[in-house]
Amino acid sequence: MLTGKNYIGFDLSAEGDTTYRTFNPLLNVENPTIFSEASEEEVDMTVTLAAKAFDAYRAISGVQKADFINAIADEIMALDDELVNMYCAETGLPEGRAKGERGRTVGQLRSFADLVRDGSWVEATIDTGIPDRTPLPKPDLRKILVPLGPVVVFGASNFPLAFSTAGGDTAAALAAGCPVIVKSHPMHAGTGELVASAIIKAAKKTGMPNGVFSNLNSSGIEVGVQLVKHPKVKAVGFTGSIGGGRALFDLAAQREEPIPVFAEMGSVNPVIALPSALSEKGNEWAKNYAGSITLAAGQFCTNPGLIFGLRSAFLDGFIKSLGEEIERLDPNCMLHPNIHDKYERGKSELSSQAGVTIAASVESGVAPNYATQRILTVDGDEFLKNPTLHKEVFGPFSVVVRCKDEMELTTIISNLEGQLTGTILGSSEEIYKYSGVVEALHGRVGRLIFNGVPTGVEVCPAMQHGGPYPASTDSRFTAVGVHSIKRWVRPLSYQNWPDIALPDELKNNNPLKISRLVDNKFTQDAW
Amino acid sequence: MLTGKNYIGFDLSAEGDTTYRTFNPLLNVENPTIFSEASEEEVDMTVTLAAKAFDAYRAISGVQKADFINAIADEIMALDDELVNMYCAETGLPEGRAKGERGRTVGQLRSFADLVRDGSWVEATIDTGIPDRTPLPKPDLRKILVPLGPVVVFGASNFPLAFSTAGGDTAAALAAGCPVIVKSHPMHAGTGELVASAIIKAAKKTGMPNGVFSNLNSSGIEVGVQLVKHPKVKAVGFTGSIGGGRALFDLAAQREEPIPVFAEMGSVNPVIALPSALSEKGNEWAKNYAGSITLAAGQFCTNPGLIFGLRSAFLDGFIKSLGEEIERLDPNCMLHPNIHDKYERGKSELSSQAGVTIAASVESGVAPNYATQRILTVDGDEFLKNPTLHKEVFGPFSVVVRCKDEMELTTIISNLEGQLTGTILGSSEEIYKYSGVVEALHGRVGRLIFNGVPTGVEVCPAMQHGGPYPASTDSRFTAVGVHSIKRWVRPLSYQNWPDIALPDELKNNNPLKISRLVDNKFTQDAW
Repeated sequence: MLTGKNYIGFDLSAEGDTTYRTFNPLLNVENPTIFSEASEEEVDMTVTLAAKAFDAYRAISGVQKADFINAIADEIMALDDELVNMYCAETGLPEGRAKGERGRTVGQLRSFADLVRDGSWVEATIDTGIPDRTPLPKPDLRKILVPLGPVVVFGASNFPLAFSTAGGDTAAALAAGCPVIVKSHPMHAGTGELVASAIIKAAKKTGMPNGVFSNLNSSGIEVGVQLVKHPKVKAVGFTGSIGGGRALFDLAAQREEPIPVFAEMGSVNPVIALPSALSEKGNEWAKNYAGSITLAAGQFCTNPGLIFGLRSAFLDGFIKSLGEEIERLDPNCMLHPNIHDKYERGKSELSSQAGVTIAASVESGVAPNYATQRILTVDGDEFLKNPTLHKEVFGPFSVVVRCKDEMELTTIISNLEGQLTGTILGSSEEIYKYSGVVEALHGRVGRLIFNGVPTGVEVCPAMQHGGPYPASTDSRFTAVGVHSIKRWVRPLSYQNWPDIALPDELKNNNPLKISRLVDNKFTQDAW
Repeated sequence: MLTGKNYIGFDLSAEGDTTYRTFNPLLNVENPTIFSEASEEEVDMTVTLAAKAFDAYRAISGVQKADFINAIADEIMALDDELVNMYCAETGLPEGRAKGERGRTVGQLRSFADLVRDGSWVEATIDTGIPDRTPLPKPDLRKILVPLGPVVVFGASNFPLAFSTAGGDTAAALAAGCPVIVKSHPMHAGTGELVASAIIKAAKKTGMPNGVFSNLNSSGIEVGVQLVKHPKVKAVGFTGSIGGGRALFDLAAQREEPIPVFAEMGSVNPVIALPSALSEKGNEWAKNYAGSITLAAGQFCTNPGLIFGLRSAFLDGFIKSLGEEIERLDPNCMLHPNIHDKYERGKSELSSQAGVTIAASVESGVAPNYATQRILTVDGDEFLKNPTLHKEVFGPFSVVVRCKDEMELTTIISNLEGQLTGTILGSSEEIYKYSGVVEALHGRVGRLIFNGVPTGVEVCPAMQHGGPYPASTDSRFTAVGVHSIKRWVRPLSYQNWPDIALPDELKNNNPLKISRLVDNKFTQDAW
């Protein structure tokens, strides 16, 4: 049952004066529960509790952390229809998507549980001493990754489960040994509270310290700002807009002690359709891309917002097919009236730019909050000189850019902002033939895709979800996959430390049987 | 032969109006060469050239990069006495130190050459596809670390070789595949130019692109500011003061595209002398620490600036011995009159704080630019309430803090700023007995040392040289050891990319025979 309260560790609390409700975009009405925004005092209490919990939590074994994280997955599944219904009521997304995203969320949690149960992720590195080395003895040095401290996670509007309360950022931080404070996304506060209740249940069942997890409601920016500025907060995870992510990055950089902010922000995910893709499979790609552009009303950070081709009759044919496919599809409901309004404004703004033609558009006959898809076309020279056309429009929308030649295309790609993904449609031979274009794309993205669509972010170790700014604030890390744990840890070295007092991961006899780099060789042996 | 000019890639250039000379602190006179500071146009030309070189350099094989880096080491050794003499003339440090630091520098370069020749450092990660997975096919994903782009390196005043022109930051960035622009340290511009000439020679001999390395002279902040703000610069390495490092960090964070700054800054390197260390080995530690405090006139970032003990007759005995040992040692010449002045000001400021007693001091009879060592003592309660006493005084200087009990000691340690190192002197049993103190220290440092001195930073994979702010701007990275390469790289994923067009590190048949994580198992096999 929803309470509308904040979880300050294990305790429910609602001391603040500000309240709000979530919105059902399908029914175009507010949902019933009244949520209480965390007060300044509640925020401070929460961080203080998390900092205290850190001392206990970071010392807990990997096996115990794995049990905790698996228990979170179990408790999320136990919420069953209550969670699915709440998710749908707060997003307008269909039940199938809710269940799919729940599966992804639970899968992510279990993959982090496996990671910390195995234990090798700490990158244990041992250089044994040489006491009789001349002129100076070589000390015994042993390095391990240790957690940074309390992490604040900002939930994403478009992934209430997989990138929010118990999403990838939270799972990675808890696995790392960092307590987590979630700044709940106001659009799905109910979903957030339910998932938070699952995490709290799991924490209690598995004996975790009070404060290992908290969930704070907020309808504006105040709670988030206070959290990021709090001296006891040591890192921040964010998924959302460039404006929001950059504001948090700036706040964190201006602190007396700056802290890392990993913000996964906007991306227009350029797609380059090389000649053979258009001449041989133009209709097929048009159909695939119509699906990718409109999937979940285009509310994905990997939505293909820009498609580039060289001017030709085949490109014109592709644009025509894409338009027909797009117009054939039914519009979908967006997450919230605010997101819908922003989509409509962005769509209009780009549509009214010089040289832009509307290639396809769905205009009428839809309910409130439904996004009507649109495809624009523009020539390369106009695109190159107009930064407005480079902007992300969050929704079922894409711009096809018609380039006059390879040089113009290369120049355009070289001048794009950083992106999560870049896609090449074509043949293997064309990767070489258009190597300048491909090389330019290589420098602007976190993930290169060949003959596919950018939507669909597989959760696996080889996934890079992040990219050069503004795709993310630090391209050196990923937000998806187990390697995302590296955002929340730092190396700590022990020099000549007594074996008995070392963490198990670094002891001579390797009691955890983890893989370690010992004197520059990987081994699971004791030594 | 010195020219006093900048290296803009392979070309010597001196277009600017500002000139300066370096200083011989032993002789207390300026050195003869006139250096030309890089002009705004020269800085811009340099970065443009580096960005162009990046396209070629990042595609060069690991083996070729290894040859280049080893050639740098060879060319540095070939400079022979010319380099050693220049080093001594610009620092006042003795020949033995010059040769030792040269050995360290060359050793670092060779360890990075070995790393990139082996090739496994790119953390190649492969998740093979499952085309018939339902409901959606699993794509083939392959991830590799790729270089960020041109890196600016700021040389350190106190390590003209090991942390400057061809020092750890440069070696790591070149190994990563990033062109390097060194902002030469004005105190040792001659040493810098000689080393730069060695790098340029090596680049030409091994066929590296023009612009892979440049060396810019500068006497003020303008060149550095322009470099950090330049849109084509993608990362910054710095070793020096908190003020300098923070200013660069702020500039980089305020850019339209923020870039990572790894600044290794100040540290006072707290040492906790537990009771057994004082009662059983007080005199021995006093002698060791007198040596560590005064080594190279205390001009090390790992110099032990704070020593803590619990009040007792043994602590008093230790202070007395430390004082006697300190007063017995001859003062050493500092690097530059400015550093000497700053030392004297810092020493005076701390000596005049409330509750502070001078336990030992060398006062007179020394030449200009020589640092006269001093030890202060203060009680824990005074230390706790006076932030001035927490400040680093760069030189042969240390404060012994007498704590009334374990609780006061724990509180003090918990409230210290972030540090490069923390040292425990005592017995294994005391690590448990004083676990609160040790745990508090654990949270504040990058390296924990048992029964040793913090000076001496071993170059090996298990070394962590960095720590919570302000020891460094990002505690998640190290400045020493081969893992420092991670500062300059980002992951890039390839999805369903044709095998023939993948980098060798990710090809099915593993032609480089590197270690890779394939479907979650480490292997050197093809598959």
